[in-house]
Amino acid sequence: MRILFIGDVVGLPGQKMVEHYLPRLKEKHRPDVVVINGENAAGGKGITEPIYRALLAWGAHVITLGNHAWDKRDIFEFIDQAKALIRPANYPPGTPGKGIVFVPTEHGEAAVINLQGRAFLPAIDCPFQKADELIAAASARTPVIIVDFHAEATSEKQAMGWYLDGRVSAVIGTHTHVQTADNRILPRGTAYITDVGMTGPYDGILGVDREAVLRKFLTGLPVRFDVKEGRSQLNAVFVDVDEKSGRAFRIERLIINDDHPYFE
Amino acid sequence: MRILFIGDVVGLPGQKMVEHYLPRLKEKHRPDVVVINGENAAGGKGITEPIYRALLAWGAHVITLGNHAWDKRDIFEFIDQAKALIRPANYPPGTPGKGIVFVPTEHGEAAVINLQGRAFLPAIDCPFQKADELIAAASARTPVIIVDFHAEATSEKQAMGWYLDGRVSAVIGTHTHVQTADNRILPRGTAYITDVGMTGPYDGILGVDREAVLRKFLTGLPVRFDVKEGRSQLNAVFVDVDEKSGRAFRIERLIINDDHPYFE
Amino acid sequence: MRILFIGDVVGLPGQKMVEHYLPRLKEKHRPDVVVINGENAAGGKGITEPIYRALLAWGAHVITLGNHAWDKRDIFEFIDQAKALIRPANYPPGTPGKGIVFVPTEHGEAAVINLQGRAFLPAIDCPFQKADELIAAASARTPVIIVDFHAEATSEKQAMGWYLDGRVSAVIGTHTHVQTADNRILPRGTAYITDVGMTGPYDGILGVDREAVLRKFLTGLPVRFDVKEGRSQLNAVFVDVDEKSGRAFRIERLIINDDHPYFE
Amino acid sequence: MRILFIGDVVGLPGQKMVEHYLPRLKEKHRPDVVVINGENAAGGKGITEPIYRALLAWGAHVITLGNHAWDKRDIFEFIDQAKALIRPANYPPGTPGKGIVFVPTEHGEAAVINLQGRAFLPAIDCPFQKADELIAAASARTPVIIVDFHAEATSEKQAMGWYLDGRVSAVIGTHTHVQTADNRILPRGTAYITDVGMTGPYDGILGVDREAVLRKFLTGLPVRFDVKEGRSQLNAVFVDVDEKSGRAFRIERLIINDDHPYFE
Ligand SMILES: [Fe+2]
Ligand SMILES: [Fe+2]
Ligand SMILES: [Fe+2]
Ligand SMILES: [Fe+2]
Ligand SMILES: [Fe+2]
Ligand SMILES: [Fe+2]
Ligand SMILES: [Fe+2]
Ligand SMILES: [Fe+2]
Repeated sequence: MRILFIGDVVGLPGQKMVEHYLPRLKEKHRPDVVVINGENAAGGKGITEPIYRALLAWGAHVITLGNHAWDKRDIFEFIDQAKALIRPANYPPGTPGKGIVFVPTEHGEAAVINLQGRAFLPAIDCPFQKADELIAAASARTPVIIVDFHAEATSEKQAMGWYLDGRVSAVIGTHTHVQTADNRILPRGTAYITDVGMTGPYDGILGVDREAVLRKFLTGLPVRFDVKEGRSQLNAVFVDVDEKSGRAFRIERLIINDDHPYFE
Repeated sequence: MRILFIGDVVGLPGQKMVEHYLPRLKEKHRPDVVVINGENAAGGKGITEPIYRALLAWGAHVITLGNHAWDKRDIFEFIDQAKALIRPANYPPGTPGKGIVFVPTEHGEAAVINLQGRAFLPAIDCPFQKADELIAAASARTPVIIVDFHAEATSEKQAMGWYLDGRVSAVIGTHTHVQTADNRILPRGTAYITDVGMTGPYDGILGVDREAVLRKFLTGLPVRFDVKEGRSQLNAVFVDVDEKSGRAFRIERLIINDDHPYFE
Repeated sequence: MRILFIGDVVGLPGQKMVEHYLPRLKEKHRPDVVVINGENAAGGKGITEPIYRALLAWGAHVITLGNHAWDKRDIFEFIDQAKALIRPANYPPGTPGKGIVFVPTEHGEAAVINLQGRAFLPAIDCPFQKADELIAAASARTPVIIVDFHAEATSEKQAMGWYLDGRVSAVIGTHTHVQTADNRILPRGTAYITDVGMTGPYDGILGVDREAVLRKFLTGLPVRFDVKEGRSQLNAVFVDVDEKSGRAFRIERLIINDDHPYFE
Repeated sequence: MRILFIGDVVGLPGQKMVEHYLPRLKEKHRPDVVVINGENAAGGKGITEPIYRALLAWGAHVITLGNHAWDKRDIFEFIDQAKALIRPANYPPGTPGKGIVFVPTEHGEAAVINLQGRAFLPAIDCPFQKADELIAAASARTPVIIVDFHAEATSEKQAMGWYLDGRVSAVIGTHTHVQTADNRILPRGTAYITDVGMTGPYDGILGVDREAVLRKFLTGLPVRFDVKEGRSQLNAVFVDVDEKSGRAFRIERLIINDDHPYFE
């Protein structure tokens, strides 16, 4: 089974990259499951129902979220009805939405789990304990389990990768908006990358207008973050999984931008 | 002018990788300047004078540091005499050591500057203000200026890259111990990468024994971090700079490990 | 010389407490200088020009600020004209406003300085270095120097108190919105209190509506903070200073609320 | 029922204050339950078995801990046998020790619960969820429940106070080492204080040698923290509880130091 995981879609530039390239990538690489992190899809902050539906229409099967999940208040209106939308599972009991979803494919089901780290991020429930709990449940149904671990610190992300090695098919990091070059298959068969990167503006700072971010670092004064206009990029990974065992045997990085043009 | 920058050397495994590969890399790629981040060279924490001297003997011209600079108390004994050793320049006035050094080469001098970020790291002086000050001084002497920006947050690192674009030859990120895949030449000629990565254990968590790190995330109890034994890796970048203008025209990533074997 | 320092005024309830009690306190205790921290005066977040003028009209001589200084955008319109308004002096060069002001009294001038800590707060310039600089300048003009140190950590606040002991008349902590009971005269004559407390709602959480704050701690979801309605309190200190030497000889706490009624 | 709660005992100076004053306080005020926070009792960092036993011998019934609980490795040897020693209950499952203890008195049992906050402190399990769980269990046995909430942020501490108002007899804050002046009985009968303060050196910074702490704030370099020598202080509160209903009707602060001498 082949999984395509597209990193944090930022604003309209990110949406347009998905609209343009996702059909081409599906045509060429034939992924069975397409997962997109959509926590920044609406103007850089959160997601709305129309954008969620558009991402599905362009070819995604699952939309994951992160710490920006709640930035647009619409989320509370539609998250409980949005079957293909998951938010970090380790938000406390009572949080709207869910943190796991099962995707049917020609080769059986794939479980997709969303978790959020706590290093340099708000204190929520333990992602490691929650992972144990969800994997136990998912394993009863399918050996193919994909984890979007939305976290800041490289230590916490690598810790999750090793913690789940041999128990899930892939641990894909999101949130830092910069793709890392450490994609690998861990010894017990889990595909791992610290961060898949970001899909949106190519010349911003994490997708955001540079002047505002620089002003913040230089002055400490509050600023308003807008999505950068101009050139765009897409960041993603492909993971190939043996659907019988759930073990991954390949994880490849994809970058599309003016320095890495796409050839069909 | 060609610069080879090797990411955070962690403990004995990292030292051995430098000892083994640096002569080979120099032989093959003929860098004019070799910079190594050595903040974790001594058992994962800090650096000692013998290790500093060994790194130079194996072929480095400059050793940079970071937040772990002060972990071994020896540093206070030898830093003021260590001509090729720099620590983040934006530690407050009165801090031992210096934050800039000039390296003579066949193609003129190269200035190497070390700065440290403040997002998720201790509050020291502003790295952006300090950069302005040091670049003004260095520019009077040479157009080739290399910055090791030791920082945690991808936002602060990208901000520094864009802030210095066109004013320095390269902004090379260190500290997260994971190489990023966003190496590029910014529009005004500055080579940039968010993090060059780490040189040391390949199967640890940032180079550290996995059990201890996992125990910390799972329990919150204090643990002792030891350097992981076993397989090793080396992470680096090459930057090519036009020495007349100081503009970079190429930045290439290098990873050596069992999944990326080195071919001479 | 007698100084009355009133802790962070929160919203309309805080304003009303100042309007009602400040004239009475001035009548009874005859302070020469009245300082009010106004960073939360406008609906809990920032300050506006009308509120600034009202606080002066009710009897204040100096309004200090803190990390919430910039929450209302009006601040950027009037701060440079507002003679009696100061913001933390250790915001970086280029920040609007100033961090020190001199108040004329019958017993000579009093300098009032505003500084902000960095522990658990944004990284700005060093408050200790900036204190040295401003005190050197102020001392040339008057021995009476009052410091509002706006900071979170008790360690940083006590550190500032001891650092300035004998060099200023008083170090008054603000920001935590809870009055501490450690008011004392340090050995070299500086009056010190870790936090003077808050002036506003008595039954909120730091002045804010309880439900929202609890929801935030229980769920991690974003919430909107409104000022709590209902009963109010006023928190302040009086400091008596020998105007010849600048040494303080008394610091007394004042709490007015339903559990500590005010008797004229 | 009367409870005496003594704030964080720091090092030998703190121990000596307990040894000297606790018998006198018991003689004069006749508390039924004496609780001491001992997280800094051993040289400022952690606790050892001999010190634990000494605190009991001097008159304590329960010793509570906090984030420094684990600083001395002895703790792992004796915590499971130490019946009167509790650590924050919201450390994750598998952590040694326990977070609740019941004390028999002439007026029935008192439950003492230890919890730790997460704002500016390590991410452990949710203290609010854990409070619900433990109070449900304790309430089945006694209406008198005392909570030591070891936390940094005033917002989180006040949130806990209001969250538990009417469900426990007292929420006593610890950790900041500075006594607050906001002791009060909340509307539904819970005694509350944001921080009870510290028992140990009077002229240190939170009990620690001033030079080291200042050096840390001024330079960012690592320093070694030693307990300050010289004059000492004791900080505590008395809480009076109606043992039938569990409601508190009085909470009084106690400070003993050279500025607040003790009169028998
Ligand atoms: Fe994101
Ligand atoms: Fe995120
Ligand atoms: Fe490092
Ligand atoms: Fe580092
Ligand atoms: Fe405030
Ligand atoms: Fe504040
Ligand atoms: Fe403590
Ligand atoms: Fe503590």
